[in-house]
Amino acid sequence: MERFPDIEKQLNFIIEIDKLKTITRRSKIIHDDRYENDAEHSWHLAMMALVLHKQANADIDLFKVVKMLLIHDLVEIYAGDTFAYDAKGREDQFDRELKAAEKLFGMLPPELHDEFMGLWLEFEKKESNEAQFALALDRLQPIMLNHQNRGYTWKLYNVTKEQVLNRNREIEKGSESLWKYARHIVEKSAEQGFLSE
Amino acid sequence: MERFPDIEKQLNFIIEIDKLKTITRRSKIIHDDRYENDAEHSWHLAMMALVLHKQANADIDLFKVVKMLLIHDLVEIYAGDTFAYDAKGREDQFDRELKAAEKLFGMLPPELHDEFMGLWLEFEKKESNEAQFALALDRLQPIMLNHQNRGYTWKLYNVTKEQVLNRNREIEKGSESLWKYARHIVEKSAEQGFLSE
Repeated sequence: MERFPDIEKQLNFIIEIDKLKTITRRSKIIHDDRYENDAEHSWHLAMMALVLHKQANADIDLFKVVKMLLIHDLVEIYAGDTFAYDAKGREDQFDRELKAAEKLFGMLPPELHDEFMGLWLEFEKKESNEAQFALALDRLQPIMLNHQNRGYTWKLYNVTKEQVLNRNREIEKGSESLWKYARHIVEKSAEQGFLSE
Repeated sequence: MERFPDIEKQLNFIIEIDKLKTITRRSKIIHDDRYENDAEHSWHLAMMALVLHKQANADIDLFKVVKMLLIHDLVEIYAGDTFAYDAKGREDQFDRELKAAEKLFGMLPPELHDEFMGLWLEFEKKESNEAQFALALDRLQPIMLNHQNRGYTWKLYNVTKEQVLNRNREIEKGSESLWKYARHIVEKSAEQGFLSE
C-alpha cells in the first residue's frame, strides 16, 4: 500500500467495516427466512430517513440523520449486538461501544475520526433533533420487521406488549406520527398473539 | 392501514424494499464465506462516499452522491442483478430496469417518486459529477472485494485482467486517484494469479 499514502487509512477502514455485514441482529428480514445483519439494517434505516423525513417533529438536517444512521452500528463490529431486551448486556453497553468507536474511528485520519466520533456520540446522547429522529427510525424498523414476521423474535424471547411500548417510547421524541403508527402495529401484534401477555 | 393515509404509501415502500436484502450479487463479502447482497452493498458504497469524497475529480454534492448510492440498485428488486461480465444480459438491462423503476418508485407519492426517479436516471446517465463519482465507487468496491477474496469471482468466471480494466475504466471519470488505485490492485491480482490471462 506504500504507493497510496494519502488514502491508505481510508481504504483499510473500508475493508475493515465490511465486517458489519457479519454482525447478526435478532430480527429476521421480511422476505426471506434469515436474520438481518447490521449493514443491511443501516441501509434500510437510511432509506427510511429519505422516505419519512417529513414525519420528524422538528426541523432536521437530513444528511446528518442519514450519516448517523449509516455509522451508528459500526461499533458493534467490536462490541457486538446487544439485544434490546437484554437488561444485563445493556449495563456496560456504552463503555464497550465507546472503546470500539475509539478503535475503529482511530483507523481514520483526524478529520474523519472527529466527524464520525462526533456523529456517533451525538446519536448516543439522544438530545439533538437529528439524533432523536434517527433513533425513532432505529426503534421503529425492528417493530415493522417483527410485525411483518408474525412476531418471530418477540415470541422467541417471550417479549410482552409492555416491554415493546416501554422500550420504544423514545420514538415519540423524534416523531409523534411514527410513534402513533408504532403503537398501532404493537396493539395489532398483541391482538394477533405475536406478543406475550 | 386506513388510519395512516398520509404515510401509508411510504410504509408500504419501506416494507417492499426490504427485498433488496434478498438480491444476491456475484462478489463474496470479505469476512465471511457468502455472497454479498444489494442492500449491504449499497450501505458499503454510501460509507465509501463519506470516507473517500475528497478523491472526486470535481466538486460534488456529497449528499446527492450518497442518495444515489442508496437507491441505485433498488431496480434489481424486479429486474435482478446483471453480472458485470454478462454481455447478453446487459443488452436489455436498461429497459428492464426502467420498467422496474417505474413500478417501484410508482408506489410513492409524486414528490418522492420524482426525486428517486431523477436520482436513478442521473446515475444511469453517468454525466453529472455526482453520477460519475458514485459510479466510480460502485465499480471500485467489487474490485476491492475480489482482490481481498483472492479473486474468487474472477476465477469462477475466468475473467481476464483486460476485461476488468475495460469494464472499470469509467472509474477514472469520477476519480483519477481511485482509478490509479484500482489499476494497482488489478495488476497485483493478475500477478497473484487471481485473474485469467
